[in-house]
Amino acid sequence: MSSDLPTLIESLAQNARKASLALNGATAEEKNDALQAIARGLESNRKLLLEENQKDLTAAEKNGLPDSMIDRLRLTHERIDAMAQGLRQLIDLPDPVGAVMEKKIRPNGLEIRKVRVPIGVIGIIYESRPNVTIDCAGLCLKSGNASILRGGKEALHSNQALARIISEALAASPLPDDAVQLIPTVEREALNHLLTLDEYIHCIIPRGGEGLIRFVAENSRIPVIKHYKGVCNLYVDAGADLNMAMEIAVSSKCGRPGVCNAIENLIVEKSVAEAFLPSCAKALTEKGCVLLGDERARLLLEDFEVSPAGKDEFQEEFLDLRLSIAVVDSVEQAIDFVNRFGSGHSEAILTEDRSRAERFLNQVDASSIYWNASTRFTDGFEFGLGAEIGISTDRLHARGPMGLEELCTYKYQIIGQGQWK
Amino acid sequence: MSSDLPTLIESLAQNARKASLALNGATAEEKNDALQAIARGLESNRKLLLEENQKDLTAAEKNGLPDSMIDRLRLTHERIDAMAQGLRQLIDLPDPVGAVMEKKIRPNGLEIRKVRVPIGVIGIIYESRPNVTIDCAGLCLKSGNASILRGGKEALHSNQALARIISEALAASPLPDDAVQLIPTVEREALNHLLTLDEYIHCIIPRGGEGLIRFVAENSRIPVIKHYKGVCNLYVDAGADLNMAMEIAVSSKCGRPGVCNAIENLIVEKSVAEAFLPSCAKALTEKGCVLLGDERARLLLEDFEVSPAGKDEFQEEFLDLRLSIAVVDSVEQAIDFVNRFGSGHSEAILTEDRSRAERFLNQVDASSIYWNASTRFTDGFEFGLGAEIGISTDRLHARGPMGLEELCTYKYQIIGQGQWK
Repeated sequence: MSSDLPTLIESLAQNARKASLALNGATAEEKNDALQAIARGLESNRKLLLEENQKDLTAAEKNGLPDSMIDRLRLTHERIDAMAQGLRQLIDLPDPVGAVMEKKIRPNGLEIRKVRVPIGVIGIIYESRPNVTIDCAGLCLKSGNASILRGGKEALHSNQALARIISEALAASPLPDDAVQLIPTVEREALNHLLTLDEYIHCIIPRGGEGLIRFVAENSRIPVIKHYKGVCNLYVDAGADLNMAMEIAVSSKCGRPGVCNAIENLIVEKSVAEAFLPSCAKALTEKGCVLLGDERARLLLEDFEVSPAGKDEFQEEFLDLRLSIAVVDSVEQAIDFVNRFGSGHSEAILTEDRSRAERFLNQVDASSIYWNASTRFTDGFEFGLGAEIGISTDRLHARGPMGLEELCTYKYQIIGQGQWK
Repeated sequence: MSSDLPTLIESLAQNARKASLALNGATAEEKNDALQAIARGLESNRKLLLEENQKDLTAAEKNGLPDSMIDRLRLTHERIDAMAQGLRQLIDLPDPVGAVMEKKIRPNGLEIRKVRVPIGVIGIIYESRPNVTIDCAGLCLKSGNASILRGGKEALHSNQALARIISEALAASPLPDDAVQLIPTVEREALNHLLTLDEYIHCIIPRGGEGLIRFVAENSRIPVIKHYKGVCNLYVDAGADLNMAMEIAVSSKCGRPGVCNAIENLIVEKSVAEAFLPSCAKALTEKGCVLLGDERARLLLEDFEVSPAGKDEFQEEFLDLRLSIAVVDSVEQAIDFVNRFGSGHSEAILTEDRSRAERFLNQVDASSIYWNASTRFTDGFEFGLGAEIGISTDRLHARGPMGLEELCTYKYQIIGQGQWK
């Protein structure tokens, strides 16, 4: 098979491009009917899904995968329901395609319309969670994009079963059969070749660990929208309500430490550090949190075990119950700290002082900046996008949580009466 | 110098990043004052500019550069006036930065604002025209972006003189000195290194020939916005007003054949081909146009010299007085032709039939699609953007003419009252 792999991948990409041109003209009703058919297919093929998933689980156990990964891989009745439910939520969202975003008449009489259209062909490269297959296929279909899915090798049987359900639903619909395609192999060579096909594929969205995302970004000739990591900062200003600060610091670190919108650094203004840090450290360590700190923080936390934190620690996404603490002189120093060490994901200031809050909101360079709220809200559902295909820390095209509109681009339609000069 | 080149380029990029964080807080007045100071600097340094430009012209003549290239390189009093005038037009445009693009209150009380902000640091890679230095510096300054300019080697003396004028204006302003930087060398090694610095530079815009643009796109780790070429198509439908078609066909090919929005292919529906093509061919050849055609077109144009056109010719951007002609059976065939051979730049249908026009407008996949007007209007000024930094045939971030708003991205500002779950 290996020698035919480039041919296989290329024809898959060509078919996706053809499907995307056809999808462009699909009505909202046709797309919603297909989503409904996939949801029903999931519900009526539970037995198949659980059986195929069991093959992946057995292999994962045999290969000694960590429990957390096996849990992500597992399908259950509840998780199948949740996938179907997610598709039905997409049906309820408005169709983003065709909206006239802007319209103007020029002095020469030309009418210029900026119209929202699908991007075209989207490649999604992801790891072990099989529900990503359904979420991404659904988001791309609803936004009129053809999708090429490349899941992780751990989930291959589960993903192939899900792909079969999608194919059957598409075959029974007026939408093109190739609107959603799963790459039938997890060989690295297939991925490498896919990433060169900028003639047919218009955007790559990698989802997973930093290693996978860096590999994709460095090897892709196709534009990539991504975030490498979420090094999120929480700044407790001199004007903070310290009870609010305590609640937000503890919950945004310990609520779910493995997610990208959890905080990694706690920055405290010097004048409240003495009042705030020891009691906050107590609450954090009671939750099992391990503390790191700069010199000033460690001086104030002599009663705790706090290992030293510097440049490397402040730039690290721990993804576990570790937290670095820094003490700063001013909101300006906090802004510098965030712009230097943060990854441009989500940053928060806690203060009752409006002018310092506005300075932070305006001068911090990140996708999502919070005043008096937790960074944990950076999420498509929380932002009212209904669903998300990922979170971008890039600056081009989309930034922050990406939903249906972010899966679209625009084109200009210009209506004249014979103008040529 | 060569061994220090990477260090030099890296420190230039770091300075640009610092400047961009400071520029983020610049007021519209500060930016406009700087633009005004650059315009005045151009006017009061005419002698220096013409002298330095003469060095480039002398070298160009000595090196036997073609006349068309020498003309693009030349500065005159009129061209200096035009550069100053361009900057003053930018002053009159609204500041794109800080606009609240969307605002919503979520059920949990969070207020989510989507605010327009500069992209950050923009690298512009261009060829021989020195006015690009001023146009791009001006557009980036007005949109709050720091810029790194890398002009062609033919224009090095002219560009360095222009950069000195910009530096003097910035030094006398509250804006950061490094808001605009010209790379002081045209060594390819410097460009190669620049394209790897995705930590500091957020977007690359190449302007010039297809060779330069492909080199940049293939070697850049930084996202690139670009168009490779403009293969624009004009489709004369069965329902076209043939007088209008004649005017638009001749003017959109012969008006200025070397630009990207001129047409390369003329597609004619079979039922009007006999009435239209011979008279149109006569008008075109009288203007010096050389014709190519598919079999059906050549049969109808037996009285003219028409060489055969196939896949390769239909995909070629001639940039001169050559035109390929094809005859099709229907608007569907015309749409397929355009989606297959066009470069996604600008496409036009001429018809009085609204339903076929709408099919073409909706199903053609390109940045700008015209109904009863010439493709030559794809231009920032014609679209009312005031000025343009380029034209994109990409789908991500910006498509078509790119002005000040397209040089911006957004960030979310979220205002809470202590929410954490």
